[in-house]
Parts: sequence; structure tokens; C-alpha cells
Amino acid sequence: MPELIVDKSKCLKNIERMVKKARVNGLSFRPHCKTHQSAEIASWFREFNVTKITVSSFSMASYFAAAGWSDILVAFPFDPGQLTTLKKLSEKTEVSVLIDNLEVLSHLKKVSRNVKFYIDIDTGYGRTGIPAANLEQITRIIQESTANRHLTFSGFYCHAGHSYKTAVPAERTAIHQRAIADLTALKNEFSRFNPRVLYGDTPNCSTQSDFNGIDEITPGNFVFYDLIQHHLGSCNLEDIAVAVACPVVGKYPDHRRVVIHGGGVHFSKEQMVINNSLVFGQLLNPASSQWMGIQPEQYITSLSQEHGILEHCGEWMEKVSIGQILKFLPVHSCMTANLLRNYKTTDGRLITTNGT
Amino acid sequence: MPELIVDKSKCLKNIERMVKKARVNGLSFRPHCKTHQSAEIASWFREFNVTKITVSSFSMASYFAAAGWSDILVAFPFDPGQLTTLKKLSEKTEVSVLIDNLEVLSHLKKVSRNVKFYIDIDTGYGRTGIPAANLEQITRIIQESTANRHLTFSGFYCHAGHSYKTAVPAERTAIHQRAIADLTALKNEFSRFNPRVLYGDTPNCSTQSDFNGIDEITPGNFVFYDLIQHHLGSCNLEDIAVAVACPVVGKYPDHRRVVIHGGGVHFSKEQMVINNSLVFGQLLNPASSQWMGIQPEQYITSLSQEHGILEHCGEWMEKVSIGQILKFLPVHSCMTANLLRNYKTTDGRLITTNGT
Repeated sequence: MPELIVDKSKCLKNIERMVKKARVNGLSFRPHCKTHQSAEIASWFREFNVTKITVSSFSMASYFAAAGWSDILVAFPFDPGQLTTLKKLSEKTEVSVLIDNLEVLSHLKKVSRNVKFYIDIDTGYGRTGIPAANLEQITRIIQESTANRHLTFSGFYCHAGHSYKTAVPAERTAIHQRAIADLTALKNEFSRFNPRVLYGDTPNCSTQSDFNGIDEITPGNFVFYDLIQHHLGSCNLEDIAVAVACPVVGKYPDHRRVVIHGGGVHFSKEQMVINNSLVFGQLLNPASSQWMGIQPEQYITSLSQEHGILEHCGEWMEKVSIGQILKFLPVHSCMTANLLRNYKTTDGRLITTNGT
Repeated sequence: MPELIVDKSKCLKNIERMVKKARVNGLSFRPHCKTHQSAEIASWFREFNVTKITVSSFSMASYFAAAGWSDILVAFPFDPGQLTTLKKLSEKTEVSVLIDNLEVLSHLKKVSRNVKFYIDIDTGYGRTGIPAANLEQITRIIQESTANRHLTFSGFYCHAGHSYKTAVPAERTAIHQRAIADLTALKNEFSRFNPRVLYGDTPNCSTQSDFNGIDEITPGNFVFYDLIQHHLGSCNLEDIAVAVACPVVGKYPDHRRVVIHGGGVHFSKEQMVINNSLVFGQLLNPASSQWMGIQPEQYITSLSQEHGILEHCGEWMEKVSIGQILKFLPVHSCMTANLLRNYKTTDGRLITTNGT
């Protein structure tokens, strides 16, 4: 069965690098835990004095609260269906939520314990959030929230996810500069509320160096990285800290094809294009006992539910046997980790998750 | 939280239609359970006197054996790493496996209980299997398997998965006709072993009418169907028996955009192109209390981990409130069901799965 292998030493290096980035720039650090969804992996951040986290669902918030995290931001537009869960969680945990409209505020006004909220700001991504220029709507939300003394406006949150749409450094920098300009303007405009500014996706936090006006960063993927992040220039291939271990189940030398047990229910169907071909994972050197010997240019090029297919296989395939375990870097580690639900450390120990 | 709703009455109709198709064509019926992965849903097939099933992993085989199924085909190239599980399972259950090479036979020869095997035949799909014309390799596998009296050659298996690659009826029929011609030739060539021929993906089993030479069909997806199957002409939209229920979490009337809680970890990232746009799900009529009123032309056009985005939204969005539950037909029901792990029936009862 396919397994997700995690290299803790690589994770610790990735965490340390981001911790330093935050420290150098005078930023508070609230890592996103949706990538790993694991209490044990979250605990690795404590070694770096991280005390607060970001998650993307109330299911994750409840899981990490039970694991002892006392300051949790649910960085997802608040769903009124989660009001009961929010009330329960906020009895013992400092829970922050995101808002970008007045309608949801009418539900949130029912909280009876202290709940902080951040206003979700759109600086050009176009997914959720209030456009930074819409001061009127922001003002109304802040004003109306005062009807409940338990509800506290704490600042602005921005996920500049369009950073994922370009691998060109100058374009990324332009996206980032616009975001921090927009957020700084809001911070000044609403300075009487002393708002905090929360920001940060993995590509920007990994590649940018100007965080003027930002108070806190919330990247998540960087703990593992993956092929998409490598393509975006966020990391080196050697920084990728997870790999999927899959048994070989078919060899077709006449067609230079190898088939593995490792499909869409393991890798996810997240895809990217490399060398004009769809790619779902990259083979690590099967001849190396090293974790991270990169086998040049050998990719999973199609996936069905349980099958992964490697085409145009090089000479390495002559030495591979049926049942042999091959390891692959995932295209998108968050999606892969969510599917595989558990990790094995490089020394074979099980690490569980919210999905275990 | 997103939930997967299943309409049992639609499933029963889908099952009944396929049962009749099998009966009319004199075929035995061994439905694939990888689509639903649920003992309860598998039990619905018993009402139609189905007594044997297909699965795609030993994890599923163990789960369904525990649920009382006594004749299970693991329709996936045998992985030597599963030998211990196979030995244990075959103590109490009739387990059949797939083979397409001699190397794996050396592992399978170690079984000490009766295990049937089918030879996986490639009739043009190009994923796994021995090309139908390679009589030499087929002969060698059959001969060498006789070294262990517990190992019984039972016939040929073919998944003509290239049926998914065309929505043109004549092209589909050509794929199907070549497959049944190839399989019939093998059946005649190896008639001294009295081989059974197992065949069938959902597109071919739903749309073809000539099954000459086939003994048993093994489709799976048809129990639910989905948008891909509808696109392929396998079903009507009204036949699709699962929908994902997702709360609205964002409304952006200026941009005609609605955002739901329902992302890649719920729908999967399986995508298709409709009207030149990537699609990840189709909205059902939000104004209808009916399960299956189709809202014309409103699709999920992008997904991140937890967010689903609907763009170019019609007038319906004016009437939608934050927190309201919308329902969506999935692109690929097998992947969606695998992610959501549980079902709710239309009357709100929970149905569990192998992944619960």
C-alpha cells in the first residue's frame, strides 16, 4: 500500500528557515496547519517557540485545540453552520475567524465568549475578501460588530494566492508589493483600531524580503514544500520533505512503461505541466538508498484511482522488480497528505493526523 | 461541512438497469465496489441476487470480506507486498487476483489456499495487461502457474479504459468491438482451460449491446454515475445518484461570484472541460426542494483545498444566503466518495465506508 514518508530533519530545516525569515523581518509567525493536519508535526514548531496556528476548517480547529493549541485562526470565511462549534471551542481556546460580509456578522453576533475576527482583504486574487479599496464596507463591518462586546475586530487578513499563478520573480514581486501597499494603507486608515495585518502564502513568504506593514505571516506548505513550490521557485527539490512510497505492480519494457500502486486516491489528481507533459509526481532515484537522490526527468504522467503510470522510462526500469518500493515527490503535498492520512518517518514510525 | 448525499432510489434504479443488461445478455455480474467503498451500499446489490464483487485493493477486499462477501476479485495487478493479506483472506474467502507477468507468479506460488487468478489483457488501453496477441506470454504464465496446485487459472480480465477517452459513439463501439474480438479469440485459443472472460467499464457496459464472448461484467461507477459519465453518454443527469452538499460562505455580486465550503479535499481535483471552461462540479437548482432540479450551466470553475468558486453566476445568486446549503453533482463520483468517506441518505441517515 502506498505510504507517505516524512523526513523530519528536512521539515525542521524548512521550519527554521521560515522562523528566521519572520524574526529578521520583525514578524510574528502563525503557521498554517492545513498542510500536515498533524498534532505531532505541529509540535515540531513548538521547538521554535511558535505558540499560535492557522487552520482552514473547524474540524482542524477542534483537533488542534484538543492537542493543546490555545490560539487558533480559522482562515476560512465563517460558515454560520459552525456557530455551535465556534461557541464550544471559544470556551477554552482563543479562536479567531475571518469575515468579508455583513450577512455573516448577524450570525457571529450570537457568540457569548470572546471571539476575534479579521476582515478578509482581496488584493487581486479574486477568491474571497473585500477589495482593499472598499473602505465603506470595511467600516460598516467594524461598526456593526460593536453590537456584541464579545466580538473583537483584530485586523486584516490577506491570502495573496495569485502568487501561485506566476513563476516569474518580477510578477510575483509586483503581486506582493501591491498586497503590502494595500494592507499598509488599510492599517493607516483604520489605525484607531490598532489593527494587526496577517499575510502570507508560501511562495511570497519564501521568496520575498520586504514585509513592511505586515505584523504576522501564516504560510503552511513550506513545512513540506512540493513540486509546485519548486516550480514557483519557493524551494529546492532537496527541500521537499515528503515522498509517497509506492510498490511497482507492472513493468512493460516494450512500451518503456512502469505501473505503480499509487493513484488519484493517494497523490490526488493535482497536476502540473513539466516539459509539455502532465505530471502527477516525480520519481526519486530508485538506485539510491539516500532519501533524496533525484532521478532526472522521470515523472508519473497519468493516474487512475489506484494506478500510477510512468511512461518513456529510462534504463533504470531494467533493474526494478515487481513489488519494489519507489518513492515520488508529490505535486501538491497538502492534497497528498490529506488523502494518505498518516505519515511514516524515515525510521518507520507512524505519525497520525486529524484524518487518521 | 461538506457532505455527500446519496439518493438510494436512484442507486437502485441504476443497479436494476445494469442487472437487466447482464441478464438480457446472459452475463454474470460482479459489480466493482471501489466507487462506493461501502458495505451498506454493496448490500443493496444483494436484493438483485448479486453474490460476488470486484474491488481494487486488498484494503477493500478485507473490508468487504468482513462484511460477508465470500467471492471477491481484486482487479489490480497483484503486489507481492500483499501476499500475507492474500493468504489470510483466502482462508475464509474466495479471492481472485490479476496477473500480467511471470515475475509476480514467483511470489503468488507461495499461496497455500486456493487462489484463482485471471490474466489481465490489454486490448488497447495501454495501462496494464498483456497485449491480446502475446499468446506466448499467456501460455507461459498458465504453464508455470501449475507448479502450485492451489493456484488456478480462471480466465481473462480486461478493463477497456480507453472507453473513457471518447464521447463519440462510433469510436466507443470500435474500442468495444476490438476488445470483445480479442477476448473471444483468447477464449477460443485457450478453450482447453475453459477460461471465463471478465470485462467491463461503466461506459461500455452502459452504452454497448453486443457482449458476445463475455462471461461476466465488472462495472462500478454506474451505481452513482457522475458528470464525466454524463458527458460520455453513459447516463442522464437525472441518473446521477450522489451530490455534494456545501454551505455558501461568500457572495460577491459585483463579480457574479459565489464561494462555497467545498474544495479539492471534498470534490477531488478531478476536472473536465465544459463550454471551454474547467469544471469541478455542477450546481443543482438551489430554488428546488427536489433532489435533482438541474440549474442550467452553473459550475464550480475552480477549487482550492477548502474553497469552491462559482463564477459568472446567474440571477439565482441574489436569493442565496450565507450559510445556505447548495448541492453539486461531482465530476468523478469515485474520487469524491473516497474523500468524503461517509454518505448521508436523502432522509439524513449516515452510511459508512471502508474509509470511515
